[in-house]
Amino acid sequence: MVAEELMNRLGITIPIIQAGMAGGPTTPELVAQVSKTGALGTFGAGYLPPDQIRDAIRKIRSMTDKPFAVNLLVYEYLDVQSDKVSKARQSVEPFRRHLGLGNAETMSKPIFTLEHQLQVILEEHVPIFSFTFGLLTEEQIHQLHQNGTVIIGTATTVQEACILESLHVDVIVAQGSEAGGHRGTFANSFESALIGTMSLVPQIKKSVTCPVIAAGGIMNGSQMAAALALGASGVQMGTAFLTVSEAGTNELHRQAILHSEDTSTVVTDVFSGKPARGIRNQFIEQMTNENSTVLPYPMQNGITREIRKEAAKQGQTNFMSLWAGQSSALARACTASDLVFQVLHEYHEALSRLTPIGVSEE
Amino acid sequence: MVAEELMNRLGITIPIIQAGMAGGPTTPELVAQVSKTGALGTFGAGYLPPDQIRDAIRKIRSMTDKPFAVNLLVYEYLDVQSDKVSKARQSVEPFRRHLGLGNAETMSKPIFTLEHQLQVILEEHVPIFSFTFGLLTEEQIHQLHQNGTVIIGTATTVQEACILESLHVDVIVAQGSEAGGHRGTFANSFESALIGTMSLVPQIKKSVTCPVIAAGGIMNGSQMAAALALGASGVQMGTAFLTVSEAGTNELHRQAILHSEDTSTVVTDVFSGKPARGIRNQFIEQMTNENSTVLPYPMQNGITREIRKEAAKQGQTNFMSLWAGQSSALARACTASDLVFQVLHEYHEALSRLTPIGVSEE
Repeated sequence: MVAEELMNRLGITIPIIQAGMAGGPTTPELVAQVSKTGALGTFGAGYLPPDQIRDAIRKIRSMTDKPFAVNLLVYEYLDVQSDKVSKARQSVEPFRRHLGLGNAETMSKPIFTLEHQLQVILEEHVPIFSFTFGLLTEEQIHQLHQNGTVIIGTATTVQEACILESLHVDVIVAQGSEAGGHRGTFANSFESALIGTMSLVPQIKKSVTCPVIAAGGIMNGSQMAAALALGASGVQMGTAFLTVSEAGTNELHRQAILHSEDTSTVVTDVFSGKPARGIRNQFIEQMTNENSTVLPYPMQNGITREIRKEAAKQGQTNFMSLWAGQSSALARACTASDLVFQVLHEYHEALSRLTPIGVSEE
Repeated sequence: MVAEELMNRLGITIPIIQAGMAGGPTTPELVAQVSKTGALGTFGAGYLPPDQIRDAIRKIRSMTDKPFAVNLLVYEYLDVQSDKVSKARQSVEPFRRHLGLGNAETMSKPIFTLEHQLQVILEEHVPIFSFTFGLLTEEQIHQLHQNGTVIIGTATTVQEACILESLHVDVIVAQGSEAGGHRGTFANSFESALIGTMSLVPQIKKSVTCPVIAAGGIMNGSQMAAALALGASGVQMGTAFLTVSEAGTNELHRQAILHSEDTSTVVTDVFSGKPARGIRNQFIEQMTNENSTVLPYPMQNGITREIRKEAAKQGQTNFMSLWAGQSSALARACTASDLVFQVLHEYHEALSRLTPIGVSEE
């Protein structure tokens, strides 16, 4: 059984990984409740300063002694010409006016870096660490390994999976094009790296020797069985956990997912500067149609932050980022442990439907 | 076993459908060889006049008494303003010059219509009929049913699947975004209908009662097991059959598939006017970058026909349409029956890897 190696390596008994979504949804409660089932909870710490990451880790540990993961985002600040910044600001100005926002905040780099965040991961001896958007250095990987941490990387193409394996990452998440939220693409153009989970998982599996976790559109046990049939050792689910009761998901975002359809989502970079899949709305359509200037990640994220916050406050989903994958219509409102055990139950139901097929005697 | 209903309905013993790709690859030999294995061969008759369809059907029947399918394309000629036609002609002129082609042929509508083609399907009592691009009329569906023909429609969204079921189509192919060749989208925008197979199949399965066939990126038995786990009753494979020895695939196209990678393909309308997935090349990139005028299907197809033919003659793959799905790198060069039986063998291997997963005692 291909899932066993992964489960042993991570110290889990159910090969379901709750994705480490940054920005609020992955509360310590959610992470702990998922890990308590035997699956793996992940704290999405990407946007948080070191001290808040430390607090969250300790809070998770106060609720469970099961393994859990922390996820961080690896990226660089690019220098952007000031006239491009002005244009990008102008592009979002109509939305600011619509929401009654005054002059835009001046943007500044956060006062902490990935190095500061990683230091907490090391000091707190986090059992499992996952990262996306870019690559850790060999030195960082070595340090984490020395510390006993299992490392999970994210690939959206075969080439990226091979790069991750050459860096001695322990486990690779294969993120298919169905996935909600940000694309992890770092080595290929994002368009060429929009590969469906059905295609991506077997091709990555063929190219690496480490365990592969399937991600992208997986919300139920039939899909988990499908992923394991493809050769994955486990599944990572993001959108599925956004609607569980312990998640810190904004209520409007939660309702948008629960009322979505198969055709609701689109991949866009207008919110953050990095392509991400979310539910189509006025902000995306207007910014796309007007061919607006979009800054690279995370500068665009900074430029739209106030808009997204104010829109959420005013209950205007048309200007919020409503990250969701292509299976969002399969979302359910329940507790995290109910979700995990329902998926596991459906997985076994799916197995019982799969029977040998007779060969004709031609 | 969910596959049984489909197999009984189609009179097959292996739930693999060879896709009815128009334009040459699906020779009568290929169709017959596939059907002889117990799977379903499909003759892609979309571009052919009635008499050639009749000849092919009779040729298939001379080789096997097993069930087979014929596929036709349902579309309308749209009126296009003559200045748009001139612009579209200008856009492809550099390619004509590059290939040494003289003045362009004047385009004319074909002398046969779908009605003429369907007449042959009825007269020859074709056991299984599949269609894509648009919708048959209720009257046409009634006539085919009266004649004992089983009808397979193609959907790329839940909405399309529901429309097909309301028309009393017997079986629905769920075409995921990974699929090679033309998109079957007819009711939604093609962008919103690029839904990965992993997401699409369970959502369509939930919405209709008739058997669903999974299509899009399926090339091996692990993927077949995955599709059946998702609730599909069978799989349709297109690209996988393009490289088998009985296929009439152009040799350069065949080699391009056999040497492709996971990131090789792109969805484009520049060849035919209808979005289709194929291997990226100079024609696609130039036409896309220059924002060329593209006529609706099938007029654009007419405008690029000579270019594609001449390019193939000169061995210039840069100007050919190299249709392929996102799993094209998994293609193999073998016979049709070897492919079917290898896939079936891999399917059973995949089943043996899928075992129950223990629940922790938290």
